[in-house]
Amino acid sequence: MINFTVGPVQSSDAVRSIGAEQVPYFRTSEFSEIMLENEALIKKFAKSGEESRAVFMTCSSSGGMETAIINTLTSQDKALIVNGGSFGQRFVELLALHKIPFTEIHLEHGKALKPEHLAPYEKQGYTTFLVNKHETSTGVHYDINLISDFCKRNHLFLIVDCVSTFLTDPFNMKELHADIMITGSQKALACPPGISVLVLSPRALERIKKTKCCCQYLDLQLALKNQERGQTPWTPAVGILRQINVRLKEIDTHGGVESEIAKTADLANYFRRKIKDLPFEIVSESLSNCVTPLHPKTCSAHELFIKIKDEYGIWICPNGGDMKDTVFRVGHIGHLTYTDYDKLIAAFKDLQKKGFI
Amino acid sequence: MINFTVGPVQSSDAVRSIGAEQVPYFRTSEFSEIMLENEALIKKFAKSGEESRAVFMTCSSSGGMETAIINTLTSQDKALIVNGGSFGQRFVELLALHKIPFTEIHLEHGKALKPEHLAPYEKQGYTTFLVNKHETSTGVHYDINLISDFCKRNHLFLIVDCVSTFLTDPFNMKELHADIMITGSQKALACPPGISVLVLSPRALERIKKTKCCCQYLDLQLALKNQERGQTPWTPAVGILRQINVRLKEIDTHGGVESEIAKTADLANYFRRKIKDLPFEIVSESLSNCVTPLHPKTCSAHELFIKIKDEYGIWICPNGGDMKDTVFRVGHIGHLTYTDYDKLIAAFKDLQKKGFI
Repeated sequence: MINFTVGPVQSSDAVRSIGAEQVPYFRTSEFSEIMLENEALIKKFAKSGEESRAVFMTCSSSGGMETAIINTLTSQDKALIVNGGSFGQRFVELLALHKIPFTEIHLEHGKALKPEHLAPYEKQGYTTFLVNKHETSTGVHYDINLISDFCKRNHLFLIVDCVSTFLTDPFNMKELHADIMITGSQKALACPPGISVLVLSPRALERIKKTKCCCQYLDLQLALKNQERGQTPWTPAVGILRQINVRLKEIDTHGGVESEIAKTADLANYFRRKIKDLPFEIVSESLSNCVTPLHPKTCSAHELFIKIKDEYGIWICPNGGDMKDTVFRVGHIGHLTYTDYDKLIAAFKDLQKKGFI
Repeated sequence: MINFTVGPVQSSDAVRSIGAEQVPYFRTSEFSEIMLENEALIKKFAKSGEESRAVFMTCSSSGGMETAIINTLTSQDKALIVNGGSFGQRFVELLALHKIPFTEIHLEHGKALKPEHLAPYEKQGYTTFLVNKHETSTGVHYDINLISDFCKRNHLFLIVDCVSTFLTDPFNMKELHADIMITGSQKALACPPGISVLVLSPRALERIKKTKCCCQYLDLQLALKNQERGQTPWTPAVGILRQINVRLKEIDTHGGVESEIAKTADLANYFRRKIKDLPFEIVSESLSNCVTPLHPKTCSAHELFIKIKDEYGIWICPNGGDMKDTVFRVGHIGHLTYTDYDKLIAAFKDLQKKGFI
């Protein structure tokens, strides 16, 4: 199978060979070293500055989003959320569950965030801003500079879901004054799913110190305390953390985050040029390098997903809910090559010839 | 390295070969089938009955313990907990955090649970009993029949941490009237860590339906709803779930849970016979087949752990806290053979010859 979904994605041979090894015992100085190296490299790639910290939680990225909220926000906060799809909606549900007062900025699917969307909320007593930098469900990449400027002017605590765009689009956590960055092991980190990574600014660390977390398993005070010596409070997904280590070092050796972003942009552009003659419409006003969201004008998106899986051995990324039949996505993260895209384009053209699309 | 810890443990070649594969996309009927098969086999091995359910959470077993508590207990409950070591203490901390009223039955490290420990709590209005069937930190295996009888007489909801004894010692969930059984992927399941498994009785399912869970990520209503079709609400550790599938089928093919228990008991007995002449003392009144807890009479347990790791390429299992220097453990779970134990015994004898122990 060739995998063009947005996670789990294809891993490099080096990452997979770690998967074949026995998982080592982890309450050792050897494993601590790996964890401290992971923290240092994640901070380097997030450009979060020396005073920031990073932790690795054994959970999904949705678990990471909840972890961020329950460790830094309280009912005394007043939050602003961009809600333009399933992941914006997830932030909304989490704030409602945890009784954090909030206002949603609703965006139609596919629409970019513009200054006029933020204007009504200037100097309105908000304390916090939550955004999915890339709303992965619709493939809309929000203008993080616009958001950052708004937050700086209004002194807002800024939580950024970078789950699908860490390593695919520029992000300078310190310059943007972002306070929490969330990502996951199975996106551009191209490791198996199971680990969520949180990078925390000094301001986030201050908030964590003062917040009583309602869940022991997701308690960042405990995670941070243990990570000081490269450990975790509970048995983590040791195998995946070792794979992340190999992958971070691969990136570091091959030119760092800039060259990883350039590689992803290149694959995205290659694919986008090649589909010009196909009956697909790009449905996002603002694209990330991570994924191309497409509306197939002549068939059901979900049927296309099934057809291309069963008959061509290729996974494209289906959508759920309202978009199930109207939108599918093609990812540009993980271990992919031009040849993989050529095969996908050939499959589309074959289906076009057969009258399916 | 040879690994005699109690997790992560050694995996079979078949499990490791899955670790080397690309992780597949999972919102597919193919992955759903694996998950439904996993649920059926776990229920079969737990002997939990047709009406029970099983779910797979991407978290540690401590996350599984918290999941059990926050989805079934409320401040209206009155809980009884056996606290004889670190994992009993973990239940205590979790109940305190979640404001569930409780009473602890304190046991000295190494001591078995006896009828007189339970006698004072007959007909005292308790609603719930929580126990680590095997207190893994001290290697004490509590008498689950004694506990079960007490719970049946007093109509208690029974939560059992079987993390280290699932597949190593007999457990018949339905006959025992146990309501929640918790285990983890990295113990006798012998897969990488990252997944906690919960088996739920009909009575547990009733409680879950009525309980508002305080954490979205660990919400069992959502997990159960999704698992009906073999899916999960959030991206799970797909790779580990596929490894669990291979391992469960291995067990099923090779005689099921009984022969897995017999194999573990055999390894435990082999090791326990061989150490008779060494200056070690077994420090538990009631052993599980899972592990042998030992007090080295002539050296520091932690120094022995380091020595045998660095000089012989063998991990024994260190203890933390008060027991750091006085107790180490030797596990009997995972892919181990007589030959592995012979090497461990040879290392001990060599250290004895050198005057280290």
